[in-house]
Amino acid sequence: MKHDLVIKGGTCVTASEMFNGDLGITDGRIAALGEGLHGKYVIDATGKLVMPGGIEAHAHIAQNSATGGMTADDYTSGSISAAFGGNSCIIPFAAQHRGMGVTETLDLYDSRASGASVLDYSYHLIVSDPSEVVLTKELPDAFRRGITSFKLFMTYDKMLVNDAQFLDVLSVAKEHGALTMVHAENAGMIKWMTDRLLARGLKEPKYHALSHPALAEEEAIHRAICMAKLVDAPLLIVHVSTPEGAALVQKARQQGAKIYGETCPQYLFLTRNDMDRPDMQGAAFMCSPPLRDAATQTALWQHIQSGTFDVVSSDHSPYRMDDTGKLAHGMDAPFTVIANGMPGIGARLPLLFSEGVGKGRISLPEFVALSSTNAARLYGLLPKKGTLAVGADADIAIWDPNKRGRISADNQHDNAGYSAFEGWEVTGLPVTVLSRGIRVIDGGALHAQAGHGQFLARAKFEHSGRKGYLAPELDPTQNFGVNIAP
Amino acid sequence: MKHDLVIKGGTCVTASEMFNGDLGITDGRIAALGEGLHGKYVIDATGKLVMPGGIEAHAHIAQNSATGGMTADDYTSGSISAAFGGNSCIIPFAAQHRGMGVTETLDLYDSRASGASVLDYSYHLIVSDPSEVVLTKELPDAFRRGITSFKLFMTYDKMLVNDAQFLDVLSVAKEHGALTMVHAENAGMIKWMTDRLLARGLKEPKYHALSHPALAEEEAIHRAICMAKLVDAPLLIVHVSTPEGAALVQKARQQGAKIYGETCPQYLFLTRNDMDRPDMQGAAFMCSPPLRDAATQTALWQHIQSGTFDVVSSDHSPYRMDDTGKLAHGMDAPFTVIANGMPGIGARLPLLFSEGVGKGRISLPEFVALSSTNAARLYGLLPKKGTLAVGADADIAIWDPNKRGRISADNQHDNAGYSAFEGWEVTGLPVTVLSRGIRVIDGGALHAQAGHGQFLARAKFEHSGRKGYLAPELDPTQNFGVNIAP
Amino acid sequence: MKHDLVIKGGTCVTASEMFNGDLGITDGRIAALGEGLHGKYVIDATGKLVMPGGIEAHAHIAQNSATGGMTADDYTSGSISAAFGGNSCIIPFAAQHRGMGVTETLDLYDSRASGASVLDYSYHLIVSDPSEVVLTKELPDAFRRGITSFKLFMTYDKMLVNDAQFLDVLSVAKEHGALTMVHAENAGMIKWMTDRLLARGLKEPKYHALSHPALAEEEAIHRAICMAKLVDAPLLIVHVSTPEGAALVQKARQQGAKIYGETCPQYLFLTRNDMDRPDMQGAAFMCSPPLRDAATQTALWQHIQSGTFDVVSSDHSPYRMDDTGKLAHGMDAPFTVIANGMPGIGARLPLLFSEGVGKGRISLPEFVALSSTNAARLYGLLPKKGTLAVGADADIAIWDPNKRGRISADNQHDNAGYSAFEGWEVTGLPVTVLSRGIRVIDGGALHAQAGHGQFLARAKFEHSGRKGYLAPELDPTQNFGVNIAP
Amino acid sequence: MKHDLVIKGGTCVTASEMFNGDLGITDGRIAALGEGLHGKYVIDATGKLVMPGGIEAHAHIAQNSATGGMTADDYTSGSISAAFGGNSCIIPFAAQHRGMGVTETLDLYDSRASGASVLDYSYHLIVSDPSEVVLTKELPDAFRRGITSFKLFMTYDKMLVNDAQFLDVLSVAKEHGALTMVHAENAGMIKWMTDRLLARGLKEPKYHALSHPALAEEEAIHRAICMAKLVDAPLLIVHVSTPEGAALVQKARQQGAKIYGETCPQYLFLTRNDMDRPDMQGAAFMCSPPLRDAATQTALWQHIQSGTFDVVSSDHSPYRMDDTGKLAHGMDAPFTVIANGMPGIGARLPLLFSEGVGKGRISLPEFVALSSTNAARLYGLLPKKGTLAVGADADIAIWDPNKRGRISADNQHDNAGYSAFEGWEVTGLPVTVLSRGIRVIDGGALHAQAGHGQFLARAKFEHSGRKGYLAPELDPTQNFGVNIAP
Repeated sequence: MKHDLVIKGGTCVTASEMFNGDLGITDGRIAALGEGLHGKYVIDATGKLVMPGGIEAHAHIAQNSATGGMTADDYTSGSISAAFGGNSCIIPFAAQHRGMGVTETLDLYDSRASGASVLDYSYHLIVSDPSEVVLTKELPDAFRRGITSFKLFMTYDKMLVNDAQFLDVLSVAKEHGALTMVHAENAGMIKWMTDRLLARGLKEPKYHALSHPALAEEEAIHRAICMAKLVDAPLLIVHVSTPEGAALVQKARQQGAKIYGETCPQYLFLTRNDMDRPDMQGAAFMCSPPLRDAATQTALWQHIQSGTFDVVSSDHSPYRMDDTGKLAHGMDAPFTVIANGMPGIGARLPLLFSEGVGKGRISLPEFVALSSTNAARLYGLLPKKGTLAVGADADIAIWDPNKRGRISADNQHDNAGYSAFEGWEVTGLPVTVLSRGIRVIDGGALHAQAGHGQFLARAKFEHSGRKGYLAPELDPTQNFGVNIAP
Repeated sequence: MKHDLVIKGGTCVTASEMFNGDLGITDGRIAALGEGLHGKYVIDATGKLVMPGGIEAHAHIAQNSATGGMTADDYTSGSISAAFGGNSCIIPFAAQHRGMGVTETLDLYDSRASGASVLDYSYHLIVSDPSEVVLTKELPDAFRRGITSFKLFMTYDKMLVNDAQFLDVLSVAKEHGALTMVHAENAGMIKWMTDRLLARGLKEPKYHALSHPALAEEEAIHRAICMAKLVDAPLLIVHVSTPEGAALVQKARQQGAKIYGETCPQYLFLTRNDMDRPDMQGAAFMCSPPLRDAATQTALWQHIQSGTFDVVSSDHSPYRMDDTGKLAHGMDAPFTVIANGMPGIGARLPLLFSEGVGKGRISLPEFVALSSTNAARLYGLLPKKGTLAVGADADIAIWDPNKRGRISADNQHDNAGYSAFEGWEVTGLPVTVLSRGIRVIDGGALHAQAGHGQFLARAKFEHSGRKGYLAPELDPTQNFGVNIAP
Repeated sequence: MKHDLVIKGGTCVTASEMFNGDLGITDGRIAALGEGLHGKYVIDATGKLVMPGGIEAHAHIAQNSATGGMTADDYTSGSISAAFGGNSCIIPFAAQHRGMGVTETLDLYDSRASGASVLDYSYHLIVSDPSEVVLTKELPDAFRRGITSFKLFMTYDKMLVNDAQFLDVLSVAKEHGALTMVHAENAGMIKWMTDRLLARGLKEPKYHALSHPALAEEEAIHRAICMAKLVDAPLLIVHVSTPEGAALVQKARQQGAKIYGETCPQYLFLTRNDMDRPDMQGAAFMCSPPLRDAATQTALWQHIQSGTFDVVSSDHSPYRMDDTGKLAHGMDAPFTVIANGMPGIGARLPLLFSEGVGKGRISLPEFVALSSTNAARLYGLLPKKGTLAVGADADIAIWDPNKRGRISADNQHDNAGYSAFEGWEVTGLPVTVLSRGIRVIDGGALHAQAGHGQFLARAKFEHSGRKGYLAPELDPTQNFGVNIAP
Repeated sequence: MKHDLVIKGGTCVTASEMFNGDLGITDGRIAALGEGLHGKYVIDATGKLVMPGGIEAHAHIAQNSATGGMTADDYTSGSISAAFGGNSCIIPFAAQHRGMGVTETLDLYDSRASGASVLDYSYHLIVSDPSEVVLTKELPDAFRRGITSFKLFMTYDKMLVNDAQFLDVLSVAKEHGALTMVHAENAGMIKWMTDRLLARGLKEPKYHALSHPALAEEEAIHRAICMAKLVDAPLLIVHVSTPEGAALVQKARQQGAKIYGETCPQYLFLTRNDMDRPDMQGAAFMCSPPLRDAATQTALWQHIQSGTFDVVSSDHSPYRMDDTGKLAHGMDAPFTVIANGMPGIGARLPLLFSEGVGKGRISLPEFVALSSTNAARLYGLLPKKGTLAVGADADIAIWDPNKRGRISADNQHDNAGYSAFEGWEVTGLPVTVLSRGIRVIDGGALHAQAGHGQFLARAKFEHSGRKGYLAPELDPTQNFGVNIAP
């Protein structure tokens, strides 16, 4: 039997182990792993690593803010940059703003993504307005549509939900099998810090770092975890940027709570000192939570190694350093009105590979887990995506572990116009990326067309065995026999 | 030289040690501790314990709620009950409601207390409306008036402050040397639980216990501590009712943060099962935070022993079990409209003595520290109150450690009409209580008159040596050299 | 192409994920995973789970004690029992006793195992006499022979090493890439407890449980971890039986130390109350560390779920309840002279599956990781053993997840003559076990012959990326630039 | 009435509070605290602090080592140096060496101390040979003689006890009400490190620091605490030198265990870099546990502030820097044969006052607690010593808080010939020291004679209320009803 395509002679890597073998691809799926496979087309992967393509699970693409501003990347440029960076799947956000319905929101994002992406995609649904109809009808509808992850904000006045609303969404998510994600920072602490900074005329971009203290993240993560524990709902803390926050995730897991954690390259590789540049150049490094310090980097790596973090995502938030993006309010604008976020969808995996695997901090299977498999598991895509298994989509990245490169805005293929990681030298780069067996990237060039990528209706979140933590007050075996748990 | 009064032959107890000696009292103060002292009057304390009188630092007296309801005790009945229970000083609350000024509030409470109390008194100021004028003018004025402790609420819609306001008050308190106290429960979690309970028709008093989950306290204590740490301000968590909350207090202290803790007899001696009574009788045991369980009692005792708690207070909140109090909304009222709190100002010390000292859980010096000295230190009264030292006010309680009694509404002398500790047998009771050398209680009878008690302008809070914890973002030695710390 | 054997239609499970596919086996190895594979022989696995066979990494087989007593199982009966229980590989111990050389020891165990086992096997080398020649010559020789794991005892007078010797072995192991394992209990505490018990005439088997207090395990685990941290050597704590011990493993991992943990079914399913039986029947449940209590079971499960334990092993220690085993010293013998241990090599996986997967405590991939893949990774066998990957040995267990059974000495196929788990009902049982493609177990019958199993020379231990913890005093970047680290 | 002596006008400080008042002293005791007291002699303490004299509870005086070497100080020079440093009481060690009886040991030390000391004194008994007769007869005898504290070593080959012996001593101590103290370092780790250092020719004094790694202390403290917990006996960890060790003390206290901690000035003020000097000058800074680093200093201060440490002692171990002391084995001697320890009995309190109180790290009452009251409480001397109370011995230190000085061997009055704190500037010094009302130090001169000091038979240790921790295996309410607890 001849496969459509065979990848021969490579070292295959899964989240569990490494082995030598061929991959046979037919009809876009992995039809066989074996030896001596035959194919109409053959890719010689000798000396290369054959891995599941990365799944970028935290990216802002074709997303407008509550006040209307738009990210620089649409689904075409965003997915292309992702593909060049070794990804074969993306899950950006569909953001409900207040006053919008959820179905309306998803329809809108479908219209933005449809026909545009070179990679398969889905959305996490940002919920900012959990009204009665949203909770009882629209979220279940979204879930049936295959949108099985919801994101909440604890900060940003126009997006945040209050604690009772947070519990409402967690409850609905739990009932349907969705995973809730949260941006955890304390809005009041940020407001108070910001007011004091501005009152003293400290408005340059770098003061953004001070306005979002580490305690604001620690506080909000603790609060979010308490709420998830109350109802025993799964919760993923996105972009954890502090050792204190990571320790809370870890502790909650040990208690049996279904808490997951994500961190991002910017917290592993950059510090707030990168923001201390003149002429608004620090704005390029503004993100929320903000960059921290070197001790934080060390601690976050340790949490990666000890299993606190399930995923390392880019939090790709592309805003140009011009009047369409970060500088929309001019060169004298206070940090409060400058768009938050930085690009990074293309740099995530090369950095994680080079600094992680290359420097002995993580193993290759751990790289695959952090970059692809765990995201697939958390977001209802495994085993269709995120692994090398029979029947899986042939979403594959072939890496040359010895290829050297240098990260630069010039080679990132996004629309942000700059890279926060400009100049970083990396060893190990993806050379071929397949999406359902189709070459998207090969030989440094794009081979797929906008529209190749398809929407992914995702399966429900299934937590594998963790015990859970339900508040005693909701446990019907205690407390007067009452059962009000979701 | 003859003292006005000499207490002879007793065993004196301070927070530090025990010794045998006489106390000589002149002009209302302790003029001498010695041997063979002479006095115009003599109290023979042979076989008795001579201790600083208790300082009740958490009581609601002559206090109206935001909706107008009044506690059953005024300064006369409240102070009398306290005195019978071994106290010689009380610090109830003066509650600012929204729309009221602070000076107006303090004037109002002065008018309620003046001429009414049999014991010296001061107030903690409850701040519910920290407007600009309150922060910049009225709180400093209050401080100058000797009101050096402020209390905030994180729950109760009509009283709570938000997180930014919390930081404002902490900052002002820190600048002037005031101690902030906080009722720490998460309002959103309580609301969410309450809504679910009521939606299922679960409205009896006992469901109040479920509506305030332990996680709501843990969450709010953590949040409050984070805010105190941010600005390095001292903070006392009142009525801690959970092991998780106590552990947070302890951890913060170890980190150097100026965090203090208080618990109450109801959490040491009662459980939520006490609320499971028919015909609204459970309402007698409703307080916030609510009663928990037996494991909590054990853990809280352990935290008393290990030093987590500085004070054990009564949280005396007297509401009658009739239509002037708990049953104001009738026998079918849901728990949400029943006044929270229980009386206990008279029972605090006999219970703590009998169950603490008598059962070997704490030593006598620890009893004095927990019941009197630590409160004096925290609230700016030491060494005038709270100890046996030369120059101190002769506020003294003489205890018979072997006297047996039984707690009953009949012998509590307050106006609540019931006791949550009805029937508890105790060994060890106060037999004589002096206020500035005047016998207030003796031989089971009241000897002082309303008006004997005077207002106490208190000194500022001085934290003794603890290192403190200031957020890195507020530390001018870091972060671009900026100093915005309060 | 026709494979020698194809397993069709099953649900394949790896440590990472589940997928539907066929397995093609040729020359004893997995030659292909695919769809529609062809084979000379076919096993229809429809409705079944196809998993890597279990690796039993903690078993005492054909092992004599320091005083000469022999386990009831030899490599034939031990491996057969293991195979019936779903295992396809075993790693018992080769025990050096004092005065024996290491090479002599390994030769001895080779002679016992060679031609006897139905499953592939290797040994962990127990080191009780780390003399200079052992450290400098014989351990390196053992390592070259493929024995890449060493075990130390902290208790048992005839086996234990002292702390300096422990560090010597850890250093040598680290230099060569071996993993050290340790039985961690404090010998002095056990001696002291034992003396007090016997002095009071308390000698029945159940007092064995009291003689080995939980603190003795906690102490020794902490000490062992400190030593491993000192030199940054990998260390696996075997048969952890206490929450305190598990917490120490977890904490050390978080600090970056290369610490691993194992627990056993007896600590998950039995309690010391099982030892409270008359007429020496309690002796059947004697093991070290001893059985604990129900709260321990709960806590250990939680540590399984949170990743503290990498492996769940049987600690199979078969001694008959007669004068060849536990009752060798008669019916009045004190617990101190009764052989420790219980059989369980056949029951481990059915119990873990039924109580773990069946009751929702762990997922199927977690079952595979705990029973097979992690052991293969730790002990230098991955990917040859422990997974379903191209090129791996076809060591496969096919499970019927719905098959019900009951554990009984009658169906365990070992020589112990009793089961500590007698009567436990299980759902989910292995129906077919392959070793290198050969059916060892099928249809409830044994199909392989003694001698099928081969010795496995194992690869060195490679820790995947964990940072490590080296004591500051051994870190050449500190402390006067001195480098004395191993 | 006229007192023998009155101290007028000072600010009195106790462990609990500060107050202004006179002290009247008659017959060597504090007869009165009051105002306007009359005395035959009067000390004007205006502007001064009147505090209980320091109690030095950790000093090696007139002590010979197991190999015969003698400390440079005898009871005369040692007590004089202590007195100049603000102490009015000392508790050095009486060391049993193997082969010696306990009574013989105490008689020997009586002969050394009797008639020699200018301050009252007692001994802690070092037990190195807990034979049957020692355990059953001699320790009880020692206890009756007023020796109510025993010290054990976990390191030093000639002094150490093994774990079972440790439990024996703890049990006997518990039965009689004695407090056990322990020097906690792991002997095996020290041996292993030492062997490696010497094998590489690294023998200069500074390598002593590396030979005693922090992990050796952490390990031994954990082990000692486990043993104390097993039998629920009180235990004081002396000279804690690591944050990890301090954290273990704190955690055990929180669990209810009766664990106490001590640290020393050398760990607060010096680092191992002080040992990096040529020509054996580093030997002056050799002590065990060794000096650590700056981060340790910060952490230990934090533990002082949070209450982990009850006492700060000097561990005064005077050996001269000549052939009678540290250089007895010549200028080429390896660190292993150089006497451990440094002088400091006179510098302890000025350093703690100046760096502690003067720099705002501790309050004055905390200074009194750490330097005097807590030692008195732990060692059975309160309220006779350690406080300002009626009936207490008039052991008083009057400090001038503004007096400036500089620590130098020249002003330490001991026989060591050097000071490890040479050149430290201090503000706040004792100006007058009284022992039982007699001026020992005044105006910079010694006024008492050798022999003024008397032996103190101490009361038993009474733990005030802490709950305790008894191992479940020793708790008769569990485990088959067996009671074998001491």
